[in-house]
Amino acid sequence: MKLTYLDNGATTFPKPEKVYQAMDYVNRNLAVNAGRGSYDLAKKATGLIDETRTKMLSLVNGEQVADVIFAPSATIALNMIIGGLDWSENDICFVSPFEHNAVMRPLKKAQDENKFEIKQLPVIRENMTIDLEKMEYLFSVNNPTKLFVTHISNVTGYILPVKQIVKIAKKYNCKVIIDASQSLGLIDIDLVNMQADFVVFAGHKNMYGPFGIGGFYMRKGEKINPFIAGGTGSDSLNLNMPSSIPGMFEPSSPNIVAVAGLNAAANVIKEEGIDYFKHEKGLTDYLTLELSKNKNVVMYLPPKDAHVGIVAFNIKGYKASDVGMILDEDYSIAVRTGYHCAPLIHNHLEDKDYVGVVRASLGRYTTKDDVDRLIMAVEEIGEE
Amino acid sequence: MKLTYLDNGATTFPKPEKVYQAMDYVNRNLAVNAGRGSYDLAKKATGLIDETRTKMLSLVNGEQVADVIFAPSATIALNMIIGGLDWSENDICFVSPFEHNAVMRPLKKAQDENKFEIKQLPVIRENMTIDLEKMEYLFSVNNPTKLFVTHISNVTGYILPVKQIVKIAKKYNCKVIIDASQSLGLIDIDLVNMQADFVVFAGHKNMYGPFGIGGFYMRKGEKINPFIAGGTGSDSLNLNMPSSIPGMFEPSSPNIVAVAGLNAAANVIKEEGIDYFKHEKGLTDYLTLELSKNKNVVMYLPPKDAHVGIVAFNIKGYKASDVGMILDEDYSIAVRTGYHCAPLIHNHLEDKDYVGVVRASLGRYTTKDDVDRLIMAVEEIGEE
Repeated sequence: MKLTYLDNGATTFPKPEKVYQAMDYVNRNLAVNAGRGSYDLAKKATGLIDETRTKMLSLVNGEQVADVIFAPSATIALNMIIGGLDWSENDICFVSPFEHNAVMRPLKKAQDENKFEIKQLPVIRENMTIDLEKMEYLFSVNNPTKLFVTHISNVTGYILPVKQIVKIAKKYNCKVIIDASQSLGLIDIDLVNMQADFVVFAGHKNMYGPFGIGGFYMRKGEKINPFIAGGTGSDSLNLNMPSSIPGMFEPSSPNIVAVAGLNAAANVIKEEGIDYFKHEKGLTDYLTLELSKNKNVVMYLPPKDAHVGIVAFNIKGYKASDVGMILDEDYSIAVRTGYHCAPLIHNHLEDKDYVGVVRASLGRYTTKDDVDRLIMAVEEIGEE
Repeated sequence: MKLTYLDNGATTFPKPEKVYQAMDYVNRNLAVNAGRGSYDLAKKATGLIDETRTKMLSLVNGEQVADVIFAPSATIALNMIIGGLDWSENDICFVSPFEHNAVMRPLKKAQDENKFEIKQLPVIRENMTIDLEKMEYLFSVNNPTKLFVTHISNVTGYILPVKQIVKIAKKYNCKVIIDASQSLGLIDIDLVNMQADFVVFAGHKNMYGPFGIGGFYMRKGEKINPFIAGGTGSDSLNLNMPSSIPGMFEPSSPNIVAVAGLNAAANVIKEEGIDYFKHEKGLTDYLTLELSKNKNVVMYLPPKDAHVGIVAFNIKGYKASDVGMILDEDYSIAVRTGYHCAPLIHNHLEDKDYVGVVRASLGRYTTKDDVDRLIMAVEEIGEE
């Protein structure tokens, strides 16, 4: 049976043909140690990294306002930011309840070391959105010093109003970190308009690039300490990391093959000019509408105008993991089930009887037929 | 002009055809999120990682005595170990003077935070080897609590007597960390015989695997704290990292494509059964002998019986970087020049007038013809 892949929230699959080709080509022809050797091939490899940096900045209108730092993953990027910021027990750190463990676990570690307070942004229970009014009040009572907000919830597909949130937080001179792992490549981000200090991205999600490359945009003028140290091919006799950006944050041999994949992925977004958002949004709304008609289904929905790519649900009488297993074994439909590395939101979703949710996550290459197969399967399972 | 690639110390290039093929195949067919989804394809991806783990253990006779932890690079592996060990101001940490900045810079960071002492193993100036006798005395005066030793110097190609060093250090119940970045895949390592606590490896050097994968072996019973935190696809409601090995050290989506490359690379070593060491050793000795005859050349040589793969030299009257440039531009020979991210050893080499050394690093696919071209070029440059 043909696989219906609805786990694009975990990683998008497949990737564009051009991504595969670029990686294989660079692997075979250019996979030397960029930024170290001064011979021609090493210079070309360095050039490819510089070019990719420029493309990633151009994607977010960031050329004038930010630098881009590459890391092996969004997780490591977040560890670098959280481990690199200065913390004290006077910090009041707000997080949205939609944050992933890639934020929450490094933050818990920083909290254990520095004893600051972590508070959650308030949620409107009815539609699972951020309560901006209440948030504004909370900020006025507990002036935020740091704020972590994910751009799209990896559990519900909720598009958080990051621009408004950042604007309000910035009244308090608060450092704002946006986790754009799920959004970059799907939703327009404009760093000139959005005054976040750090925006984290993953190569392998909606960018349709490979594993092994992620990173963050850092607003010019921002400063963090290097969290990961190592050789940089520069200033070798200095036991401290060099002070140049991005060098001070990019020790270790660059993964030029993954960079080549990200470069090709950025090209596809730019050159094909297809409105991937419109495509995914159409299928999201269709899937949501059809599943909502099914009386055996419990849904976990954000408002329609702030919802894309991910549909979370359960089937009454089944644990989420059982549904996942049946979808896999009987229908060859790949979804993910459980808590999805998002520890806080499940208190609001009240999904613990189901041990989490079933998550169908759509992608650039998902078709209406794929979605119909899921709708049909859920119907059959619910009727059993 | 055909490129003569003599920068294998930075990264081996090219890789075996099977590595390229495995990566492209997995990229196209299996690059889903291993360890998260429970559908068939995700299970296959997880299986490939488990299989690779087993192969990496088998390579070092480690099945019974160690676990293998994957990381995106040897640098990150070292940051995980150094950042994960417990340190206090009572620590006396010894390092060999051959350590790379991937060790020294994270160590400097840990020292800044914990104020312990870092001491260097003594060196016999005449042949640039570790002075074991003096070391033993130093240990008896300053009982070591932690010891970092690289297995092969990335500057001189010196094979350090790690087994003897570990044995002596272990009398003091000292934690020993071996940096095998340059050695694994080239020199036999037997974890049953070598009582190191941690052995760090890089996929992209003498393993002939890709960038994006490295890690470390950790002796069973050892404990370190998680340094990098994030989602693990398990125990999601827990804000601490899970306590299982390797899970607690492997947050983030696994780079299954890089793992596939490492897997194929390990197969090549096992199946082809070629004595790569013998090949590289032969060429190393030949290059050393021929360059030694050149009166314009200054060499930085370990003893012949402890020397492989890397030959460090300078040409009188030239800065190292000038030689590198001429070799590249006039001879299409790629070497690396400078300090090579090894901050301590240059005090012993006394190479600062040359601003470091020229490093010719040989590999599995280096031929006698490649070496002859270098010998000839060095002769011509020296005579100018």
